[in-house]
Amino acid sequence: MIERIAILGTGLLGTSVGLALRAAGYRGSIVGWNRGAEGAQAALAMGAIDSIAADPLQAARESQVVVLAVPIYATLDLMEKLSGVLGSEHLVTDVGSTKAKITEAAGRLFNTQERAAFLPGHPMAGKERGGAALGDAELFRGAVWLFTEVPTWERSLASSKLVKGWRELVAAMGSKCIDLEPARHDELVAWVSHLPQFVATALSALLQEEVGDAPELKDVGGRALREMTRLGASPYSMWRDIAATNTEAIQAALHALEQQLAHLRENLRTPELRDEFEQANRFRQE
Amino acid sequence: MIERIAILGTGLLGTSVGLALRAAGYRGSIVGWNRGAEGAQAALAMGAIDSIAADPLQAARESQVVVLAVPIYATLDLMEKLSGVLGSEHLVTDVGSTKAKITEAAGRLFNTQERAAFLPGHPMAGKERGGAALGDAELFRGAVWLFTEVPTWERSLASSKLVKGWRELVAAMGSKCIDLEPARHDELVAWVSHLPQFVATALSALLQEEVGDAPELKDVGGRALREMTRLGASPYSMWRDIAATNTEAIQAALHALEQQLAHLRENLRTPELRDEFEQANRFRQE
Repeated sequence: MIERIAILGTGLLGTSVGLALRAAGYRGSIVGWNRGAEGAQAALAMGAIDSIAADPLQAARESQVVVLAVPIYATLDLMEKLSGVLGSEHLVTDVGSTKAKITEAAGRLFNTQERAAFLPGHPMAGKERGGAALGDAELFRGAVWLFTEVPTWERSLASSKLVKGWRELVAAMGSKCIDLEPARHDELVAWVSHLPQFVATALSALLQEEVGDAPELKDVGGRALREMTRLGASPYSMWRDIAATNTEAIQAALHALEQQLAHLRENLRTPELRDEFEQANRFRQE
Repeated sequence: MIERIAILGTGLLGTSVGLALRAAGYRGSIVGWNRGAEGAQAALAMGAIDSIAADPLQAARESQVVVLAVPIYATLDLMEKLSGVLGSEHLVTDVGSTKAKITEAAGRLFNTQERAAFLPGHPMAGKERGGAALGDAELFRGAVWLFTEVPTWERSLASSKLVKGWRELVAAMGSKCIDLEPARHDELVAWVSHLPQFVATALSALLQEEVGDAPELKDVGGRALREMTRLGASPYSMWRDIAATNTEAIQAALHALEQQLAHLRENLRTPELRDEFEQANRFRQE
């Protein structure tokens, strides 16, 4: 039923969506647009898209489903522009890491009988480095794909069918769909996704100061150090928008961790340390 | 030249040493002792040791090289006992994660012309769960094995040869030998090994409080969350001794990270955030 998809932004996620759609057996067309020509060329060469569009709005108009795979503020900007040129026969969806602002805009600009549908989405998958060249057809397999629709939205029959069809394609890409209320989404990902990222960034930045001048000694840390700092390679360009659109929840999570670390530091030689380890062990119990 | 090795403590590390020695082509005997009979039986069944000793001191006396693979305070306790029963034809070595106290004891109890040699060692390898059953012949491949000998120590010719022989076996197990001054060792591992562990413990314990009651939502975090909390499964029984014997260095590292996190928290919406990400990116540059 879905036969024409536009992917706006062919970085790591956009390119992976194209590749995963093909791997899942999707046979319709995929047109791609990217701000930088190089990323679009790479996605085309990899088979993630069939053609490159010069104008994102025209590519969207000529498609049924439009996937926004750009940073959050660029997503909000495209949403403003697309809402004026798309109609009830279109679905727009996104892959942004915070959902309160995007879902608010989706209610304001989309999701009436006359307008296009907007399905706010967030695949919990990624890599510490971006770019089309790292695109991966298996990126979403086994991952959770979160959605934050609002029950009061009204949609045309045509666009409602596209919403159902896109959810089926997400499942076919190997992801498990979970629906959350937008504020709950942003609070939850602050704990399980944004906090781990900012901890890895802080730990990596600190270690760069402390042992960065002794490169052979980085090897000393082994697998544990590599894992705990892998996300230190994540780009500011993506995380700036996440930090700016989920600030309060991230601040609360960071502050709680600072207190947890201080408690641990003050109890390195007391029986409290056992309680901390046992609490941590419980989190990792299978 | 080394033909008789005793491994005292056949947990994860002791069992892995036995398996790695065999994989490296060592053909001499390996006798094992463990406080709990089950761990010794498992190591025997896996081929990590040839026989089980009832008395660790007698097993040590009948061997040329004695590998202590027990927690740090148990290592210090065995060092006291072994120093009275071993002589200049023996080498004792260990795998403990802090080295200042053990190296001090090694200078006081060993390393004269008449006494056994003691080579303080620390393979930078492990797993988040312990026990003989997880023993792995490949555990030390590609890892760094740190040593903290003191230049003023005097040793018999026989035990000096055993030191050289053991270093060759460590290299044959696939590890890279690096020598460090003991205080420098403890400070370095506080940053690159102990800090990552305590961060993972604090993060896991905090998340257990915050999202532990929503097990299906743990999946939401994906690979990043799994990696950042893997070490949360590490056992208190091992880390208690590390925390108690490297307290000041770990406290300094934890305190520095608390400050780094606070700085990041206060700058989620300022250009400072870019500097933090770029500093972290540098640590992960290949």
